Amino acid sequence: MGEIAADPTHPRYQSLLMRHRLEEAEKKGMLAGSALIAHGRGEAFDYMIGEQTLPSALQATHQALAYLSQAKNPVISLNGNVVALAGREILHLAHHLQCPVEINIFYRTPERMEALLSHLHEIKQQEGLDVDILGAEPNARIPGLEGPRAKCTKEGIFEADVLLVPLEDGDRCEALVAMGKTVLVIDLNPLSRTAQMASVTIVDELTRVVNNMNRILESEEQTMLLSTYDNQATVQQALDHISTFFAS
Amino acid sequence: MGEIAADPTHPRYQSLLMRHRLEEAEKKGMLAGSALIAHGRGEAFDYMIGEQTLPSALQATHQALAYLSQAKNPVISLNGNVVALAGREILHLAHHLQCPVEINIFYRTPERMEALLSHLHEIKQQEGLDVDILGAEPNARIPGLEGPRAKCTKEGIFEADVLLVPLEDGDRCEALVAMGKTVLVIDLNPLSRTAQMASVTIVDELTRVVNNMNRILESEEQTMLLSTYDNQATVQQALDHISTFFAS
Repeated sequence: MGEIAADPTHPRYQSLLMRHRLEEAEKKGMLAGSALIAHGRGEAFDYMIGEQTLPSALQATHQALAYLSQAKNPVISLNGNVVALAGREILHLAHHLQCPVEINIFYRTPERMEALLSHLHEIKQQEGLDVDILGAEPNARIPGLEGPRAKCTKEGIFEADVLLVPLEDGDRCEALVAMGKTVLVIDLNPLSRTAQMASVTIVDELTRVVNNMNRILESEEQTMLLSTYDNQATVQQALDHISTFFAS
Repeated sequence: MGEIAADPTHPRYQSLLMRHRLEEAEKKGMLAGSALIAHGRGEAFDYMIGEQTLPSALQATHQALAYLSQAKNPVISLNGNVVALAGREILHLAHHLQCPVEINIFYRTPERMEALLSHLHEIKQQEGLDVDILGAEPNARIPGLEGPRAKCTKEGIFEADVLLVPLEDGDRCEALVAMGKTVLVIDLNPLSRTAQMASVTIVDELTRVVNNMNRILESEEQTMLLSTYDNQATVQQALDHISTFFAS
């Protein structure tokens, strides 16, 4: 896999690179048992949207970025797969946006938290980034959720007005929306509860989204919050694309 | 997971049971690195067909069973995920059909072969089944394939006239079809090369298919080879179902 991943002209380069990152993360103890299965589900949906950023997804990306740029307390929530697949790219995004990231995992163990935190701190130091990495010492709870997955930090997720939560599960997305937050999600399944419930739903592959966001920020393109943005229509365009894919 | 999998009334029982079987198989060294990701892709497609056996899939199951029943040298080809997910059910099927099974894996290592063989021999003994388990000592090659994945046995896959190959990759399916064999596949992605190329394509989840086959054989229902069977139409019905799922 290392060989193939080293050749960016290989048609499966991006997909193999993501698998390679997951393998490395697994070795470091960063992933939950269900992480690879979840990634496979994502691969299937990405295949159906043609492994590309649909125009509707790019619109949603712009809208999400506008929310993040104008927020008072923006936070990026990270789970194991997100750190594994796009840890570096997300830290660059957070640096650009001057917002903290917070590790908020479903299956919380001290070992996994430690593996994820040290991976992020290593990248932060290597790349010379200025980003607060929260989550090590939770001191608040997301109302309406039970068990360790409710744990969060007061200065991070709890008080955030705008949250970017890539690859979030439905229960948590619902609980965050119920707290009155603007919840921006990245989810390849346009029919998932998360996709249906979010303020802005980006139906696209995680690293493509974060790379798009970083590219937009670096180009100093103006990001405008559009009052005409219709999230349901955005999700519908992804559904239409998939439906057509199978109807052809 | 053990607790949830023990309660068959749980709405996700079947899905959790499959994950549990993969976890156990992983511990025994039966799986390739990409096994869980492949399973996740399958989960996504199963979700789209509603985690049910479509009428077209049941038709294809009957047709496949008729081919197996009337074959001169039927063989069931097994890879790691198939053994993990449905090893027991498949051995019962092979016992009913009085046909051998052959382990034929893409990433062949002596350790994986040993783990898979001993798992199957254990089930065979526990259940008192009379089935030849081939693959330990390959003595032939599938023409048109390179490397270890071409290895097979002369008395098994090489000379089979009818092959059931669940969860097969496109290259191998193509090579087997090119050998002039009747190739019956189980594949949840109706657009995969395997699904498109096979003689009979069952777009359904592996354990549901094998349980259906065993149920049909035990009921002594007549299995008739239908000259009117149209595999393309069968695959098209699965595509239509998925297309409608996303169009709703």
